[in-house]
Amino acid sequence: MSNPYMSIDPQLFTHRAGAEVHIDLSAITQNYLYLQSKVAPAQCGGVVKADAYGLGMVEVAKALYKAGCRHFFVAHLDEGIALRSVLNAECTIYILHGFIPNQEALFIQNRLTPILNDIQQLKSWSQLCNHQRKNHPAAVQFDTGMSRFGIGQDELAQLSQISWDFFRPCLAMSHLACADTPDHPANQQQLTRFNTLKALIPCTTASLSASSGIFLGKDFHFDLVRPGIALYGGNPTPNAPNPMRAVVTLQGKILQTRSINTGDFIGYGATFVAPCPMKIATLSIGYADGFFRSLSPKLQARSPKYPEIPLPLLGRISMDSLCVDVTNLPENSIQSGDIIELIGKSCSINDVARTIDTISYEILTALGDRYHRIYTS
Amino acid sequence: MSNPYMSIDPQLFTHRAGAEVHIDLSAITQNYLYLQSKVAPAQCGGVVKADAYGLGMVEVAKALYKAGCRHFFVAHLDEGIALRSVLNAECTIYILHGFIPNQEALFIQNRLTPILNDIQQLKSWSQLCNHQRKNHPAAVQFDTGMSRFGIGQDELAQLSQISWDFFRPCLAMSHLACADTPDHPANQQQLTRFNTLKALIPCTTASLSASSGIFLGKDFHFDLVRPGIALYGGNPTPNAPNPMRAVVTLQGKILQTRSINTGDFIGYGATFVAPCPMKIATLSIGYADGFFRSLSPKLQARSPKYPEIPLPLLGRISMDSLCVDVTNLPENSIQSGDIIELIGKSCSINDVARTIDTISYEILTALGDRYHRIYTS
Repeated sequence: MSNPYMSIDPQLFTHRAGAEVHIDLSAITQNYLYLQSKVAPAQCGGVVKADAYGLGMVEVAKALYKAGCRHFFVAHLDEGIALRSVLNAECTIYILHGFIPNQEALFIQNRLTPILNDIQQLKSWSQLCNHQRKNHPAAVQFDTGMSRFGIGQDELAQLSQISWDFFRPCLAMSHLACADTPDHPANQQQLTRFNTLKALIPCTTASLSASSGIFLGKDFHFDLVRPGIALYGGNPTPNAPNPMRAVVTLQGKILQTRSINTGDFIGYGATFVAPCPMKIATLSIGYADGFFRSLSPKLQARSPKYPEIPLPLLGRISMDSLCVDVTNLPENSIQSGDIIELIGKSCSINDVARTIDTISYEILTALGDRYHRIYTS
Repeated sequence: MSNPYMSIDPQLFTHRAGAEVHIDLSAITQNYLYLQSKVAPAQCGGVVKADAYGLGMVEVAKALYKAGCRHFFVAHLDEGIALRSVLNAECTIYILHGFIPNQEALFIQNRLTPILNDIQQLKSWSQLCNHQRKNHPAAVQFDTGMSRFGIGQDELAQLSQISWDFFRPCLAMSHLACADTPDHPANQQQLTRFNTLKALIPCTTASLSASSGIFLGKDFHFDLVRPGIALYGGNPTPNAPNPMRAVVTLQGKILQTRSINTGDFIGYGATFVAPCPMKIATLSIGYADGFFRSLSPKLQARSPKYPEIPLPLLGRISMDSLCVDVTNLPENSIQSGDIIELIGKSCSINDVARTIDTISYEILTALGDRYHRIYTS
C-alpha cells in the first residue's frame, strides 16, 4: 500500500505545538477555480465568515484573492473590519448580518457592504444615500422560504416606500434552505420566488446559491455564487461522491504511551475496560480543541508511519487529551512527540461529521485556538 | 416575579458585538474562596487551561491571584508561556501535559513546572538537575487507574534508576476518573493506590483532587486541590444541587424579526413548519460560536425584558444565527439590536449540557472567539 502521508514534511510539526491543523491553501485555490469554471460566466465569491470556517480568514482570503476572488462574505461587522485590513479596495466585503441601528457609519468608514435583510435596514440605508447624495453600496436580501434572513412576505408592501433616487442595490440575493437535497421541492419554490422578488428592486445582479446550490444547475447560478464549505473540502453533494479536494489534516502529538492489563480502565467514568493486555497512547487533542466529546469512541486515528493500521479511540475524550489503542503497531515503533493523525487521508471532515450526525461545517468551525495552524501552498 | 436581569448594565452590551459572554469574576472569586475554605488547611489552586475553559485565562488568573491563588494549572506549554507573562514569580504554573523530548529548556526559561508523567520524563529531568546541580521544580504524576497521564504500574520498577541527588519533586499527584460519582468504587481504589505510590518518591506534598474530588471528603484533599469547572459555575456534584455560583451569561442580539404564516418553514432542511401564524426573531449566535448544532430545538431563550416568557428555539441552528419563537412576547416589545439570553439565570451551563448529554465543561470550552467577552467584578 502506498503511503498517503509522504507529502507531509515532519519539520512542519513545530517544536512547541501539542497539536496542529495543516491547511492546504493550494487545495482551496483549486476548489475555487473548479467552482469558478463550473459557474462561468457567473462570478464565484468566497465565504470566509467564522474565521474561514476555523481555517484562518486572513490566510484563506489572501489565497482566494490570488485565485481571482473579488467578492468576500462574512457574517459579523467585526469580521468585516478585520478582513478589510488585508484586502484592497477593489474587493467587495459583504456583511451577511446586515446592520443594527446606528452602525451605518462603521460600514461606510470600513468600506463594508451590508446585506440589508429587512425593510427597516433598507429604509435607513436609502435615507443615508439620499442624505449624502451618494450611492453607498449595499445588497438586498429577500427571504424566499428559509425564514431566517431577508425581506419577507410581510414586508413586501412597504417596498413602495423606499426611495431609489440615490440608492441602487449592488446585489439582490437570497439563500436556499435545502440545496444539499436536490430533490427537495423547496429548491424550485425558492428559485421561482427569487426570480419574482428580485424584479421588485432596481438591481441587475443577483445571487442565490452557496456551495450546494452551485450543483443544482445553471438556473441557480445567476451572477454570483457564494461557496463556503466546498472551498474547504466539505462535500456539497452529500448523496454523491465529494467533488472537492481535501484541505484539512489534523494531528496531535503523543504525550505518553503505556501498557495496561486486562481489567484496567481508561478515562473518565471508567467507560472502557481493557479486555486483554493493551498498549495505549495519550494524545494532546481534546474536546477543548473542538474534537467533540461525542466522537469517542467512534473514530480511528492513524500513525503516518503505519497508515494501514487503524488506531481506535478508547474511552471518553478528555478536555485536553484522548487515548488511542496502539496495541497493533510494531513494538517500539512510536514514542512521545510522534504525531498521530485524526483527520486526513483516512478520515475526512465529512467522515467525522457523519459519525456524530452533524455536518462538516461544524467539525471545521469547532477547531479550537490551541492548534498551531500550518499553511502549505 | 422579580426580574433576575436587573443587575446587567445594558451599556455593557457594546455597539459592534453580535453576541456577548458576560463573565462574573466576583463569582469566580467567591467560588474560589468557598473551595479554599472547604479544604483548609490544604491549599486551593486553580485550573486555567483551555483559556480558563473559554472564559479568558488572563482575566481569570488575575482574579484568582487576587483571591489568594498561587498554584495554576494549564495543559500546554504554550498556555504556560502566555500565563507566565501575567503572573509573578511567586506563583507556580504547572504544565499538565509534561514535556516531550528537547522542550526542557523552554520550561526553565519560562519558569514553568512540568508534571512528569512517565519514567522517561522523570529520568530526563533528574539528569538535567544533576547536570546543573540545581533542583528545578517539577511535579510527578502517578497513574492510579485512569490510564491517561502518569507513571503506570508498568514503569514502577524503573523508579529505582532515578537519581534524587539534586531533583526533589515539588508535588506528587494523580487524577480521579470517577470523582463526580461518589459511590464509584474507583474513587477509594485510586485513593489507596495514590497513598502507596506517592511514598515511592522523596516528596512531602501531594495533590489528588480536582473539582468533584473536593466533595469526596478530607481524605481526598491532601496538600493541594485543583478545581477547574467548579470555579466557573459547573456543578461538581452532578447528583446534588450545585453548590457553586453561576459565572456565565450568554446573550445574542436580534438581527431581525418577522411574521410567518401557517405552513412556512424555518431554517436549513425545512425541519420546522409553522403550525400557526408566528413571530420569530433571528439571533446572531450560531454553531460557529460553540452553540452546538445538536442543541436545536431543545432549548428556550429569554428576553431580559420578559424573563417569564420562554422563547423556544425553532428549526436548525445555523453557523452564525438561530431563530427563536417570539410569538408570545407583547406586540412591538422587541426590535433589531435587542438582546436575548441563551445561557444565564433561566438556563445554566449545566442545564444546557444535560440537554445534549454532555458536561458543562464542553459547553464552556466550545464558546467561540466572536463573542465580546465582558467582565464584571
